[in-house]
Amino acid sequence: MFDSPHRRFNPLNGRWVLISPQRLSRPWQGQADEIEPRPPSFDPECYLCPGNTRITGAVNPDYDGVYLFQNDFAALMTDIPKNVSGDPLFRAETTAGECHVICFSPDHGKSLPELEQNQIRDVVDQWCDWSGRLGIKYRSVQIFENKGAMMGCSNPHPHGQIWATRHVPDEVAIEELPQREYHDRLGSPLLLDVARQEIERAERVVVETEHWLAIVPYWASWPFETLLLPRFAAQRLPDLDEAQRDDLARAIRELTIRYDNLFQCSFPYSMGWHGAPFVPDGGDKDAPHWQLHAHFYPPLLRSATVRKFMVGYEMLAEAQRDLTPEKAAEMLRSVSDVHYRETRA
Amino acid sequence: MFDSPHRRFNPLNGRWVLISPQRLSRPWQGQADEIEPRPPSFDPECYLCPGNTRITGAVNPDYDGVYLFQNDFAALMTDIPKNVSGDPLFRAETTAGECHVICFSPDHGKSLPELEQNQIRDVVDQWCDWSGRLGIKYRSVQIFENKGAMMGCSNPHPHGQIWATRHVPDEVAIEELPQREYHDRLGSPLLLDVARQEIERAERVVVETEHWLAIVPYWASWPFETLLLPRFAAQRLPDLDEAQRDDLARAIRELTIRYDNLFQCSFPYSMGWHGAPFVPDGGDKDAPHWQLHAHFYPPLLRSATVRKFMVGYEMLAEAQRDLTPEKAAEMLRSVSDVHYRETRA
Ligand SMILES: O=P(O)(O)O[C@H]1O[C@H](CO)[C@@H](O)[C@H](O)[C@H]1O
Ligand SMILES: O=P(O)(O)O[C@H]1O[C@H](CO)[C@@H](O)[C@H](O)[C@H]1O
Repeated sequence: MFDSPHRRFNPLNGRWVLISPQRLSRPWQGQADEIEPRPPSFDPECYLCPGNTRITGAVNPDYDGVYLFQNDFAALMTDIPKNVSGDPLFRAETTAGECHVICFSPDHGKSLPELEQNQIRDVVDQWCDWSGRLGIKYRSVQIFENKGAMMGCSNPHPHGQIWATRHVPDEVAIEELPQREYHDRLGSPLLLDVARQEIERAERVVVETEHWLAIVPYWASWPFETLLLPRFAAQRLPDLDEAQRDDLARAIRELTIRYDNLFQCSFPYSMGWHGAPFVPDGGDKDAPHWQLHAHFYPPLLRSATVRKFMVGYEMLAEAQRDLTPEKAAEMLRSVSDVHYRETRA
Repeated sequence: MFDSPHRRFNPLNGRWVLISPQRLSRPWQGQADEIEPRPPSFDPECYLCPGNTRITGAVNPDYDGVYLFQNDFAALMTDIPKNVSGDPLFRAETTAGECHVICFSPDHGKSLPELEQNQIRDVVDQWCDWSGRLGIKYRSVQIFENKGAMMGCSNPHPHGQIWATRHVPDEVAIEELPQREYHDRLGSPLLLDVARQEIERAERVVVETEHWLAIVPYWASWPFETLLLPRFAAQRLPDLDEAQRDDLARAIRELTIRYDNLFQCSFPYSMGWHGAPFVPDGGDKDAPHWQLHAHFYPPLLRSATVRKFMVGYEMLAEAQRDLTPEKAAEMLRSVSDVHYRETRA
């Protein structure tokens, strides 16, 4: 079955992916992106480096570890009054929110895989603390990182973002029902069962630590997409304890090192966390069907410069891939877990 | 309400888009793509030009108008036996299908907006004929075009694709229920009512011909996304009569000329047709809730080289835009309907 064209089902969001393993040998004559050179440790023009002045005139402190500030060009604004337009064909609603930027380190040239585990642990702590803090006011706290020019990242300085909103956005909302139905039916969180089964099957595992697991999911739509899962029940980031956070830093370090080593480049991706929505209005917070997880969506396909395009058929019909998820996981497992730049040095 | 951040609802697929009009002034320091030079009329290396040999050894005929052939690296294969894997966490099914390539013209350097209306009419006829023909065997016939290197198009020779499948893919399937519910409730097709109302409101109209309408939909997620709609009830491409096909060629020509003129470049996009699924097993073909339409998804945002990236927040949360659909439509209306290359010549 898996040598010929088939579709696989994503039980988390209900979407399918078309897999065409027979097509892997197809030649590529399209666009090749450029390899980005390694940025310097400090860039006087960078608005995220310590001590530099941002476009608004604000001056960054001489920060040492992680540094968080409000986005100067926020997509969201606080205190927007509620307003809805109910016409069935022209439905709209106002929303309120906040956008923050989080610099992972003062070093302009080192992204996550090149940071020490304890530095990544600081990033994890900020994610946990800020989602808890913003979750008092907003239902959704979306933590994400766009990495690399290919992913629209306008600045190579290692950083992520946090967008909090009054509403629960589509990609989180769509994961609610499948998780609830699975939990109602079988009594355990869907993604915890996925983690258990993937450890046993082993073929799609990329990173396995004491508390965490990174797999290329069975239904991955991007060539090297991964799903980072806790091996224990966890609904939201602030729930993580010390040991789980330490181990998460370790898992992220190993996963991103494997990514960088695959094509010996700073591997671009968009990543972000999904967890149970927050309950700012004081209702019942318990959502036992929800399992915290992070999605990594990297665009590369064959090399540091040849990417997968999700266009045409993907936009109009459904996701399509040639490389099987099993093969992708094998490739990520087979590279070293020591960063290639470190080996060279 | 529309000056501050708000969300709009897409009644066709149930997804939301976050609009941040206050953010339009944000500076852009990220990736700029290259402008592609105009290709020559004939390229001896092009596997789509008349008389050239393809990688498989097949030789293209010395074609004059439109030329269709089976994709040499098809994502789908005919005669794949049915097979399903029913594990709730690892669900899969085989699928069968066919992939065709359709060259719009023998001229390597002229894309749709530079063809004559009667040449576009030939393309329309092929779309209609082939969807009818493949619809005898397959439920879904996805017609699409990827245009421009930015959209993963591996060859500038003007061409589109047709992928037919036994199954109905996600992006078509998701439009079934909202259209059916609307029609059950109100007795007319959702998108026909949208067309009627948009003509009255006028603010999002880009092209209006006797039988067709192109709008930037109220819920557009790409900056210059458009929806091409018949002004009459139509379920599938083969249903179109002579006058409707002629007029469709006219509408496509005007829409794509406006696109090219906006930033004075060959405007990249992915476009494709959605209509009622075919009924190859001889059941009831009538699907009065279904209204035929084409989506145009162009990536450009500010200029010929600065695109919108649908990354991070978009992939993890929901689509986001700064430019309002009303402003985008106004911009597309305000450019000439004569192609800029013609004006120069
Ligand atoms: O046109 P091609 O070369 O077959 O391929 C292009 O379109 C396909 C269908 O949209 C996509 O799956 C590919 O990622 C893209 O590169
Ligand atoms: O990081 P920036 O510059 O705010 O912007 C980037 O990420 C945003 C959130 O994913 C996207 O909406 C933008 O299209 C992208 O360029």
